[in-house]
Amino acid sequence: MIPVAILEILKSIVGKGWVLTDEADLAAYAFDGFCMEFTPDAVVLPQNTAEVSAILRIANREKINIVPRGAGTNLSGTSVARRGGMVMPLSRMDRILEIDGPNRCAVVQPGVVNADLQKALEPYGLMYGPDPSSWYVSTIGGNISLNAAGPRALKYGSSREHLLGLEVVKADGTVIKIGSKTSKNAAGYDLPHLFCGAEGTLGIITEATVRIIPLPEAERTIQAVYANLDDACATVSKIIAAGITPSAMDLLDQTLIDLIQGYGGVEFPEGATAFLLIETDGHPATVKDEVGKIVNICNAYNAIDIQVARTPEENEIIWRARRSIGGVFSKVCKTMINEDATVPVASLPAIMKTVLKLRDKHKLNVGIMAHAGDGNLHPAIMTDASNKEEMQRVDDFAEDLYRETLKLGGSLSGEHGIGLAKKQFVSMQFTNEALLMMRQIKELFDPNNILNPGGYIDETT
Amino acid sequence: MIPVAILEILKSIVGKGWVLTDEADLAAYAFDGFCMEFTPDAVVLPQNTAEVSAILRIANREKINIVPRGAGTNLSGTSVARRGGMVMPLSRMDRILEIDGPNRCAVVQPGVVNADLQKALEPYGLMYGPDPSSWYVSTIGGNISLNAAGPRALKYGSSREHLLGLEVVKADGTVIKIGSKTSKNAAGYDLPHLFCGAEGTLGIITEATVRIIPLPEAERTIQAVYANLDDACATVSKIIAAGITPSAMDLLDQTLIDLIQGYGGVEFPEGATAFLLIETDGHPATVKDEVGKIVNICNAYNAIDIQVARTPEENEIIWRARRSIGGVFSKVCKTMINEDATVPVASLPAIMKTVLKLRDKHKLNVGIMAHAGDGNLHPAIMTDASNKEEMQRVDDFAEDLYRETLKLGGSLSGEHGIGLAKKQFVSMQFTNEALLMMRQIKELFDPNNILNPGGYIDETT
Repeated sequence: MIPVAILEILKSIVGKGWVLTDEADLAAYAFDGFCMEFTPDAVVLPQNTAEVSAILRIANREKINIVPRGAGTNLSGTSVARRGGMVMPLSRMDRILEIDGPNRCAVVQPGVVNADLQKALEPYGLMYGPDPSSWYVSTIGGNISLNAAGPRALKYGSSREHLLGLEVVKADGTVIKIGSKTSKNAAGYDLPHLFCGAEGTLGIITEATVRIIPLPEAERTIQAVYANLDDACATVSKIIAAGITPSAMDLLDQTLIDLIQGYGGVEFPEGATAFLLIETDGHPATVKDEVGKIVNICNAYNAIDIQVARTPEENEIIWRARRSIGGVFSKVCKTMINEDATVPVASLPAIMKTVLKLRDKHKLNVGIMAHAGDGNLHPAIMTDASNKEEMQRVDDFAEDLYRETLKLGGSLSGEHGIGLAKKQFVSMQFTNEALLMMRQIKELFDPNNILNPGGYIDETT
Repeated sequence: MIPVAILEILKSIVGKGWVLTDEADLAAYAFDGFCMEFTPDAVVLPQNTAEVSAILRIANREKINIVPRGAGTNLSGTSVARRGGMVMPLSRMDRILEIDGPNRCAVVQPGVVNADLQKALEPYGLMYGPDPSSWYVSTIGGNISLNAAGPRALKYGSSREHLLGLEVVKADGTVIKIGSKTSKNAAGYDLPHLFCGAEGTLGIITEATVRIIPLPEAERTIQAVYANLDDACATVSKIIAAGITPSAMDLLDQTLIDLIQGYGGVEFPEGATAFLLIETDGHPATVKDEVGKIVNICNAYNAIDIQVARTPEENEIIWRARRSIGGVFSKVCKTMINEDATVPVASLPAIMKTVLKLRDKHKLNVGIMAHAGDGNLHPAIMTDASNKEEMQRVDDFAEDLYRETLKLGGSLSGEHGIGLAKKQFVSMQFTNEALLMMRQIKELFDPNNILNPGGYIDETT
């Protein structure tokens, strides 16, 4: 509980209407894209950096937890008040401060929605690389805090590769500016990237300078359907080996194909057990040539159906199949747990087989979506969080999955972060020495442990 | 001075022949690419991680400074024992441990020479992005420690963008492994990048996993000569605005043109005051099209001579002009100080003018080489380090230069680091809060301050 006197101070900082304590309001901020709920003691919505700083000074003095929050779309439980205190949405700080085309960068407040930035950049012939599936609601601040990526990370990189500079408020309220607008910067320690993927545990991002890039002149999407999952995986490896870097190479397995069959007009041929969505973009001549090469590879690996979009509209139809998954899950299960196992791409076939084996072992309903070109797998477990027995099997599945992932030289996360979802596994990936280093950094930045506590960083696992 | 007993212990760790204390040997490690000399007390050359760790444990206990060193080509004075102690070259740890083509990464020891890695990758149709001018001698460990880049950083990024994982030995001898082979990784704090650009002050890199990329199918180099520097700068801006990202866009000013005129068969037309070397690479059709667009832009901005290489040999001739600079300097001056001012690229014309103005103000012989597409300027001051009065003017020039650079939103360094060269200027770029954060991290990692001390991090400026 936050003492009434403190709530009054918070109201004096952000204005009465922006400190929420009604049950209904708290409930709206009690969950995110993961399956665990924690009702916060208050929700405080600052409007600018000065307010964020003032709130942190009070919270740090009074040792009140603060959980920064973007759109709450993260799939790992990083924006819920797992140890109580206040949730701090940055949604009111949603201004694009500058689009600097000649310098290929943009300066934004943390609450700017990814899609809004993309839309604002388009008239300049520019785009922002990261395109998480949540792009139409998730925010740049949240994207950076989770090191979010998306399909086109394969070619353009994750949030990390697009970060140039930050304004950050430390736990004690200190405002620091780090990084610059320059595309190259070798001065000082690389502080901005320390906050990228820190899941809000090291400071609150109040402004970000991000790299932007020219919109590709052309893009073409290819849909290849396979009767055999191995053939789809081999296609992916062969495309990489051919020196081609598509802007996306996503894979759906038979479970997901069956789920979205017919949904939104999507039709797959009979016997389809794997679906590859491959996009190439860039110069029209390159795109044309790469489409030819990719189609040849798909054919060589026994694709039973290949469709190449000839227009942006046809592109959109293929993407719709891929994107319709999110909507379908809500119809077929109460809870969808989206894993994020990532392996070096050459181990894609091995990890795919492992997931199918574990699905059977733990008797779960699991579909696989993969950013296949990145070796980034999202096994989607369709379950029901209220079914304790099944949730235990979900946990066991995840433990097996990540153990195998790490054996292959992989990582617990490609783009979703650790959060609550995988905190119990971190000692499988990190040595004690590496974990100690992270914990020492956390202690240095946030000695009272008020920033998003209760995760892998501050709890011994 | 290092006590004899400690030297004996060091010899027992690395072998007698690998602890150097002879005057001639020490002299060889007393300088780097910057102009300040410091004779170390000893030079210790470890062969593997275990030896590095054992050396650090002793050094940390006895509080003996250690300066890690690659090839010593850095231009900022980061690999000299500015406060005594031992220099630790990693030159014996020069093995390429793995070229993993299917996963587009390589695992190398720190002493691997950049050019050797490039050569080893070539048969696989792969390359490593960073290409510092020193690439034929400088090492991957040194490159990462300085966040080194090179001409093609414009398209491919700096060392930072190519770093996936590290093995690092901390000051107390602890060995930690951080990062992974996966191209996406959102698990844990971004520790690897903290060591990239840390100039050997946070730990000793003993192994690096780096991203590698397909060799471009085609490349073409364009040489454009201008009678007017402004026209050359405008060409650069226009190419960026056109959405083209060349793989290099380097500029030489009149001083440098005059210097290399005739050298190595390079001939510039009369009246040449600026020279642009523009390279585009990728798919042959894209390259062909971009060459056309670039030539049109060069023409539109009054280039007086444009040559497009038609063969790899002709490519090489144009690059020779650019690369011959290094050799020429040693003939025309005793000391060359290479600055590294970096501005957002739209400020290129402004900073170019500033440099010319400051050159006249401080009566110095200054030529300008710029990675123009990155806004990364290397004003080369041709001077004589033994001339105290002139060196004062060099310092004054640098101070004025960096003040103006920072006013334009720039950085003290694009690719050379801070080192001794710019330590006196850091408080112009970083706020006290940011500097404090860096110092606290340093203290955390190296409480006895034995790793490359005497720089901006541990000395109050």
